[in-house]
Amino acid sequence: MRALVLDGAPRLDRAFPDPERKPGEAIVDVLVAGVCDTDLQLARGYMGFRGVPGHEFVGRVRESDDPRWIGKRVVADINAGCGACDECRERAGHHCGARTVLGILARSGAFADRLSIPERCLVEVPDDVSDDRAVFAEPLAAALHVLDDASWLEASDRAVVLGDGKLGQLIARALAGVGHRVVMVGRHERKLAMIRSAGVEALLEGQTGLLPRSRLVVDATGSASGLALAMKLTAPRGTIVLKTTVAGALEIDLSPLVIDEIRLVGSRCGDMHRAVDVLTRRQVDPLPLVEARYPLDEAADAIAHAGRKGSMKVLVDV
Amino acid sequence: MRALVLDGAPRLDRAFPDPERKPGEAIVDVLVAGVCDTDLQLARGYMGFRGVPGHEFVGRVRESDDPRWIGKRVVADINAGCGACDECRERAGHHCGARTVLGILARSGAFADRLSIPERCLVEVPDDVSDDRAVFAEPLAAALHVLDDASWLEASDRAVVLGDGKLGQLIARALAGVGHRVVMVGRHERKLAMIRSAGVEALLEGQTGLLPRSRLVVDATGSASGLALAMKLTAPRGTIVLKTTVAGALEIDLSPLVIDEIRLVGSRCGDMHRAVDVLTRRQVDPLPLVEARYPLDEAADAIAHAGRKGSMKVLVDV
Repeated sequence: MRALVLDGAPRLDRAFPDPERKPGEAIVDVLVAGVCDTDLQLARGYMGFRGVPGHEFVGRVRESDDPRWIGKRVVADINAGCGACDECRERAGHHCGARTVLGILARSGAFADRLSIPERCLVEVPDDVSDDRAVFAEPLAAALHVLDDASWLEASDRAVVLGDGKLGQLIARALAGVGHRVVMVGRHERKLAMIRSAGVEALLEGQTGLLPRSRLVVDATGSASGLALAMKLTAPRGTIVLKTTVAGALEIDLSPLVIDEIRLVGSRCGDMHRAVDVLTRRQVDPLPLVEARYPLDEAADAIAHAGRKGSMKVLVDV
Repeated sequence: MRALVLDGAPRLDRAFPDPERKPGEAIVDVLVAGVCDTDLQLARGYMGFRGVPGHEFVGRVRESDDPRWIGKRVVADINAGCGACDECRERAGHHCGARTVLGILARSGAFADRLSIPERCLVEVPDDVSDDRAVFAEPLAAALHVLDDASWLEASDRAVVLGDGKLGQLIARALAGVGHRVVMVGRHERKLAMIRSAGVEALLEGQTGLLPRSRLVVDATGSASGLALAMKLTAPRGTIVLKTTVAGALEIDLSPLVIDEIRLVGSRCGDMHRAVDVLTRRQVDPLPLVEARYPLDEAADAIAHAGRKGSMKVLVDV
């Protein structure tokens, strides 16, 4: 089958071996996949990754142990835990020590004709959620996961989303979509205009002087200066949710964290069922974030495009 | 009166003006004061501090509006909030935007014959708690405050305290004293031996390979390498309580925080009533931490002594 391979520069392999289906797993024909900043970091050597990247996808089940899945249009939780440990039994296995992660850790990803994933990770996509919406389920789940660290958030609270890139855009849409007050803070008037057209308030970084400090700030900048600003914008005893993995060291003064007793919480993947539910109810419209699309044959170009400064979501049609 | 003044090198001023008592405040004759690492940082210019440092003290009330306080032996919450805002009314005013902080922010501190502090900050010390124990009430309150961010800590959890300095020593004693399983991780066999004689398990950093990752790690190292090790020792979804303010920037890779969804919580001052209660019940014995004592006339030497690498608690007799 065809697959985009990272091992040096991204390149399309037309004779990549088909995924081998293990017991309990499903083979899924990929329909559309999305490029995430993590893919760009993997391409730059993050986590020493080699293989097929891609973890945002919608596909159709081709083979599975349970015949009811066959032919179903699906998205999937990308964390494939062992299924047997406490972490897997009691939660979603996102922190299972033996997990593989689709397109990130020891499991070939979605920039390919097919992939293999445990059946228990699959989530069916209702007919009226288009492929282009469904491909956002994974990052939307991650965006909504912010709320798992902010269950105390009240209607009167205004959450600050820092960073106007594609992740910040999706988080702001997600929080606003499920009913929270949101203000995005960014550096690019063009991107702030995008989120304003989704009905979300937006400010340039230089305009935050009068913004009251917030109980919830989501840092989607992936930069030391972003985290420093986040600490300034967070109320004492407030929470900063850190949504971005940055490869390498930041230089940062963490003393405001202690003085203001702020909690900084790392946040990764979320509940795919909730994301599909939000897409089904049309509480969030991710389509304005799609900037370009490439066929799988040109997936290396898709990665290059997504790597350009300021680019929004790039999709790959399989 | 006499007071240690920071404005350049620490020096004793024998004609420092007496504190002026404002309505609602008490004048307290200091009996014993303790030197904290924050004092050393203030002496090095942290927060641009000038004036009289010192926030760990036990004293006797000389003047107050409420005559019942006069003559009482007291410690005090060092955060003097405005008394009127939500933060002051609903909590202890530790984050009141208009607060002064004894010996740290806009309020003369305890390395002096006398100090002034709002009556509502005072906590009476029972007769059977000696001055030398009572002077630990403030850092002990800060140590016990760790538990306010770990209310979920169970008897089966083993909390890790990282750092074998005087703050780490007190935190380990505090957590163990109130009934938790604790292991200290440090770099100095001599200091680890100190905590072992208090009945607490202790390991050198190089011996942590087999230590199961913990749900609660307290970082009392004040170093970037300490925080990096803390992230390694913390279980996924676990909590790191950051107890040390470090002046200046750290170079740190925060991606483990995101991957393992760890929460990093800054933690400052605690409840003085709880600390006095723990001292009264003798759940914690801080006396083995006292390394040296100086008269107030030699308070500058006390600061110099406390600044020596590896020193434990230095007291100042007033």
